Amino acid sequence: MSKKKSRFLQTPIDPFTVEAGLTADAIVTRMERISFQGRNLATAHRIWLKMLEDDVTIFLGMAGALSAGGLRMIVAHLIANRYVDCLVSTGANLYHDLHETRGQHHFLGSAHADDAALAAERIDRVYDTYASEEEFIDNDNWIAGFAATLEKRPYTTREFLYLLGGHLWKTTGRDGILTAAYRANVPIFCPAIADSSIGMGLSQARQSTPGAGYIDIIGDIVESANLVIRRPRTASVVLGGGTPKNFINQATVQAEFYSDEVGGHRYALQIVTDVPHFGGASGSSLEEAQSWGKLATDSVRVSVQADATIALPVLASALAVSAPPLLASRKPPVFSLASRIMTIDGQTVPSDRFEEVNEPAV
Amino acid sequence: MSKKKSRFLQTPIDPFTVEAGLTADAIVTRMERISFQGRNLATAHRIWLKMLEDDVTIFLGMAGALSAGGLRMIVAHLIANRYVDCLVSTGANLYHDLHETRGQHHFLGSAHADDAALAAERIDRVYDTYASEEEFIDNDNWIAGFAATLEKRPYTTREFLYLLGGHLWKTTGRDGILTAAYRANVPIFCPAIADSSIGMGLSQARQSTPGAGYIDIIGDIVESANLVIRRPRTASVVLGGGTPKNFINQATVQAEFYSDEVGGHRYALQIVTDVPHFGGASGSSLEEAQSWGKLATDSVRVSVQADATIALPVLASALAVSAPPLLASRKPPVFSLASRIMTIDGQTVPSDRFEEVNEPAV
Amino acid sequence: MSKKKSRFLQTPIDPFTVEAGLTADAIVTRMERISFQGRNLATAHRIWLKMLEDDVTIFLGMAGALSAGGLRMIVAHLIANRYVDCLVSTGANLYHDLHETRGQHHFLGSAHADDAALAAERIDRVYDTYASEEEFIDNDNWIAGFAATLEKRPYTTREFLYLLGGHLWKTTGRDGILTAAYRANVPIFCPAIADSSIGMGLSQARQSTPGAGYIDIIGDIVESANLVIRRPRTASVVLGGGTPKNFINQATVQAEFYSDEVGGHRYALQIVTDVPHFGGASGSSLEEAQSWGKLATDSVRVSVQADATIALPVLASALAVSAPPLLASRKPPVFSLASRIMTIDGQTVPSDRFEEVNEPAV
Amino acid sequence: MSKKKSRFLQTPIDPFTVEAGLTADAIVTRMERISFQGRNLATAHRIWLKMLEDDVTIFLGMAGALSAGGLRMIVAHLIANRYVDCLVSTGANLYHDLHETRGQHHFLGSAHADDAALAAERIDRVYDTYASEEEFIDNDNWIAGFAATLEKRPYTTREFLYLLGGHLWKTTGRDGILTAAYRANVPIFCPAIADSSIGMGLSQARQSTPGAGYIDIIGDIVESANLVIRRPRTASVVLGGGTPKNFINQATVQAEFYSDEVGGHRYALQIVTDVPHFGGASGSSLEEAQSWGKLATDSVRVSVQADATIALPVLASALAVSAPPLLASRKPPVFSLASRIMTIDGQTVPSDRFEEVNEPAV
Repeated sequence: MSKKKSRFLQTPIDPFTVEAGLTADAIVTRMERISFQGRNLATAHRIWLKMLEDDVTIFLGMAGALSAGGLRMIVAHLIANRYVDCLVSTGANLYHDLHETRGQHHFLGSAHADDAALAAERIDRVYDTYASEEEFIDNDNWIAGFAATLEKRPYTTREFLYLLGGHLWKTTGRDGILTAAYRANVPIFCPAIADSSIGMGLSQARQSTPGAGYIDIIGDIVESANLVIRRPRTASVVLGGGTPKNFINQATVQAEFYSDEVGGHRYALQIVTDVPHFGGASGSSLEEAQSWGKLATDSVRVSVQADATIALPVLASALAVSAPPLLASRKPPVFSLASRIMTIDGQTVPSDRFEEVNEPAV
Repeated sequence: MSKKKSRFLQTPIDPFTVEAGLTADAIVTRMERISFQGRNLATAHRIWLKMLEDDVTIFLGMAGALSAGGLRMIVAHLIANRYVDCLVSTGANLYHDLHETRGQHHFLGSAHADDAALAAERIDRVYDTYASEEEFIDNDNWIAGFAATLEKRPYTTREFLYLLGGHLWKTTGRDGILTAAYRANVPIFCPAIADSSIGMGLSQARQSTPGAGYIDIIGDIVESANLVIRRPRTASVVLGGGTPKNFINQATVQAEFYSDEVGGHRYALQIVTDVPHFGGASGSSLEEAQSWGKLATDSVRVSVQADATIALPVLASALAVSAPPLLASRKPPVFSLASRIMTIDGQTVPSDRFEEVNEPAV
Repeated sequence: MSKKKSRFLQTPIDPFTVEAGLTADAIVTRMERISFQGRNLATAHRIWLKMLEDDVTIFLGMAGALSAGGLRMIVAHLIANRYVDCLVSTGANLYHDLHETRGQHHFLGSAHADDAALAAERIDRVYDTYASEEEFIDNDNWIAGFAATLEKRPYTTREFLYLLGGHLWKTTGRDGILTAAYRANVPIFCPAIADSSIGMGLSQARQSTPGAGYIDIIGDIVESANLVIRRPRTASVVLGGGTPKNFINQATVQAEFYSDEVGGHRYALQIVTDVPHFGGASGSSLEEAQSWGKLATDSVRVSVQADATIALPVLASALAVSAPPLLASRKPPVFSLASRIMTIDGQTVPSDRFEEVNEPAV
Repeated sequence: MSKKKSRFLQTPIDPFTVEAGLTADAIVTRMERISFQGRNLATAHRIWLKMLEDDVTIFLGMAGALSAGGLRMIVAHLIANRYVDCLVSTGANLYHDLHETRGQHHFLGSAHADDAALAAERIDRVYDTYASEEEFIDNDNWIAGFAATLEKRPYTTREFLYLLGGHLWKTTGRDGILTAAYRANVPIFCPAIADSSIGMGLSQARQSTPGAGYIDIIGDIVESANLVIRRPRTASVVLGGGTPKNFINQATVQAEFYSDEVGGHRYALQIVTDVPHFGGASGSSLEEAQSWGKLATDSVRVSVQADATIALPVLASALAVSAPPLLASRKPPVFSLASRIMTIDGQTVPSDRFEEVNEPAV
């Protein structure tokens, strides 16, 4: 046993020791020298702090039923305190957020429910969580009603969601994802808005008001890529995969065609439950993302294989202790979002054509 | 042991017996009386046959990297032979299909690749499969070029993809998903087109040709719901979850607001790798879908927990033997897709307003 | 919206709100009214408190590489403070515990290692964790050496592991699972000891010392069932499935043949990553366990689908605040373990025949 | 596009094409040039053929409820035709095999059962499969009865299971795993026998017959390692992980201490549903296994992430066409198993001490 230790055996595992009164940051710090997903969660904490310290635009992607599942105020908190600079979300998460911001609720339910009985009472189930279909229809009408009041022209989801957040804030004065983003001037993209009840509300706007409910989803592609062209240093935080994960990566891939300064996200952190070996994008590894130029090959990155309903409360609670000094000195990008053409740090971010910093790659 | 058998113990497991020369249909039939996912695959086979025998419109949803992964000709076969009547796909699957139909390839690769080395050679990796980024850029340009030739107005994805399929067929004369759908007049919806390289191609069309590349994604919602209003008896076959799964369900939920005859899919079959217990839509159970009215409470349904690259080749090969008599006598809906307003069985299917068969539910 | 709420819509989801300085118990309490696995973790916390409050014998099952992965001191803490009364473990977890208690280490490694390079340096990898094969061989010899000193007769794993823990304590004076169990007189069963390096050490004892290294594994079955016959009210806490999960259940099933008072565990809590739908025991649901009589049909139970390296540090840290009053008033069973026949609360627990409280069931 | 193809882009994906009448071997062959788990299944087929062609001892590991789930006659077929040379199994799989060989059945059930109702009728559920507890008790008694007739001494599981298989064959004359292994002289190891109903039966033998039901599980370790010392070229086929997977690997690791010719399995094939990233052995990668010397660093290997109830029927049906010529010319090891000391190719394989071919490694 006197031999020199192998170069592979440098830092011993330090077993987690239990103590009364540990706060989230202490727990996460004690996870730094254990293994498997606990260590990955600790690494995620450190990487997020690095992001905040560095001069990067931080994208947050959000898929899965996180709003209905009780995480919407964490996301609102991350937005309001500028842990993140831009949200890419599924429509459902924004819709369920709107549902609660409007004063309605999701409810504790059972994963072993009798779904026929629920259907008979018009209760919609999301695993162990229930909601009233009647209240959902009321939301749809509310969204349709609002959309019908807008000028009759196509809107990027970024513009529409800013306006929707504003209307929601003025109507309710309540915190939530949409209202926090509105108040903090944080843009929200929703690339699959057509696959959600917000899309359904928009489609219903056409019924009452011909010409209403037009969304320019291709404009979102242009705008998000221009964001990266304007500020090529970026980071990606992804909860749950889906379209948000890919859309955030696509922005940098698309931007790279028009600017040599773009080189993939510098930091990437994902909390996912999907796995890589079936080939789907949700579970794809951050290593694979390098081959596409989605991540810089020297990016700092970690995947946490965990349900966000466990990992995010712990992670956000830890950051609430460790991040404030960094947040205080951070200079996040400043957006103006109220019109068809947004700005970042005073520069326009068009949605109808790419900013050509250099010649296209081909 | 002389006691009467319990009502729960009626049909014995019949162990699978190996024999040389078993064809796919024989294999699947022998799986009917085993357990777990093998039995579910056998049930999927029987349910698909029932769908074909019944008078239902069959939606096929397709997510995950199935085209790049070698399943695109199975999907083309299902379309050409009208095992299905309408495809809902992610953009990536259609893009990778176009890639190969244009004569390019994906390549056998390794899941343990050195991604920095791949990035250096501009090779994009999808788990164990590679593609050339240069060829992808060529596709983007080709799509942008085509989109720039179209009349300057918004297109639903259904209309755009029909036109794209037609252009692809005229250019290449090769089989594939897009070309098969074009030739068979099977509509394709792509609700998350903004989250794909087809969307990127469309966004690039704007660069060369102001006014090109506008997609009316909300029109797709209206159109897909009107399809269900026109033919309320439907079935859902889903490969891999994602936006297609929900969009197919959303069509029936939305249609229900406008027609009492709509009551959720009568049949549902999903081949998924996601699980229900994290709350995401991809893995959500078909039982849960009943609570929403996505499925009829008396629907016939099965989930197969398997990678589609194993389950679909076996299932499609089995159907190739068992389904032809049913396909021969089947009367699938007849679509015309060449213009802004599609028709089904001669009836118009608007994309700007819902067909109101009855009064809205609220 | 004025209508009476459905019976299904009683308790609203209460979104998790972030705050600086939250301790683990506060975090877990705030998870009680969110969804999915976060809620399940909160439920696990409440159920464990109920177990401590009730008069039940608490079994802890432990599979997966939790000791190497940095959780061994949590398990030692649970044993020392009598959160649990009996441990059932895989051999690997006990072996890796012994490795560290002997003053050696596991090391932080990479999941993307070059395994051929590791093999060349004789480093063994467990996902992202490394250990020295040379040190492992030293352990094997140490175990073999100790086993060779014992009287030449078969030992149940319970007796052998108690003696091993005692020897380890006397040699090292260090805390760990084996030494904590020794000092707290908590029995450890290891039904699959033959599938572990402890088994390998025992097998090597035979080489030096004919007649050494005999284990009476069937005696463990008898003894564990007799434990349940002696104290029929039981609870099960399972980390990771495997043989410990089933062995704990088997004890109650076996005991039921000999005593009418046994009726399955009253409480069950499992933290697992496996899923039910492939039919394996590790992922099997606690509902299914009822059909076997492993759990009482009115048992209180929860499955947390999470990696134990995240869930257990949080859960144990929360219990460190909430449990001490219950621990203080708890009257756990008192064992004596030093000989072939153990006792519980002064009553013998034979390993050679079942205590027949009533006539066998058949 | 005229540039030379990258070294990474050599073999194009060849999409699976559907055809009526495809046999299993044709299906698997067409999967060779698709992606993800379909390709892995095709690779598994090729690797198994290579094993049969090479001069290796093939171990088969079997965990999960495969016998109850309808795969026992496939395993019996693999044994009878010497696709494999040694079986390592969980106790449950052997017990459920015995159950059916004795003329009883498992039954088609539902995964959504009312488990309290099942418990009331004493029906045991394994996911979607039921069995009669009363019949299980009858098996336990039958095993106990047989064990009580044996000479009063410890038995390795290998010896006991051979005797049990013989008794079963003489009693029933029916095919199954235990009877096929008996007739083909293929050894079976069951390292976790204490965690199964066979173990329970053995424990009950002690009740009627003091001195009966003693198992020498450490002897199994010695014997299995001596097998590898005798024939150092080995291969591993694993269905579902668990103790069998590790026990097969342990045999080669243990053997290596005593012979320089042992260098890890030359071939490894696993069909698993577990994943590596939680650190458990069941899901551990075959790459990791190299670091331990469980696999040779130049081993040929594949993991198929699939439920065995789908993958194994397809794979075994394909092999039934492709393997017979190789089986015909194969020279499998010849065992004699009827006594305490087994032989392989006429050489003794002790269970009380390792064959020392070279000096121990330390």
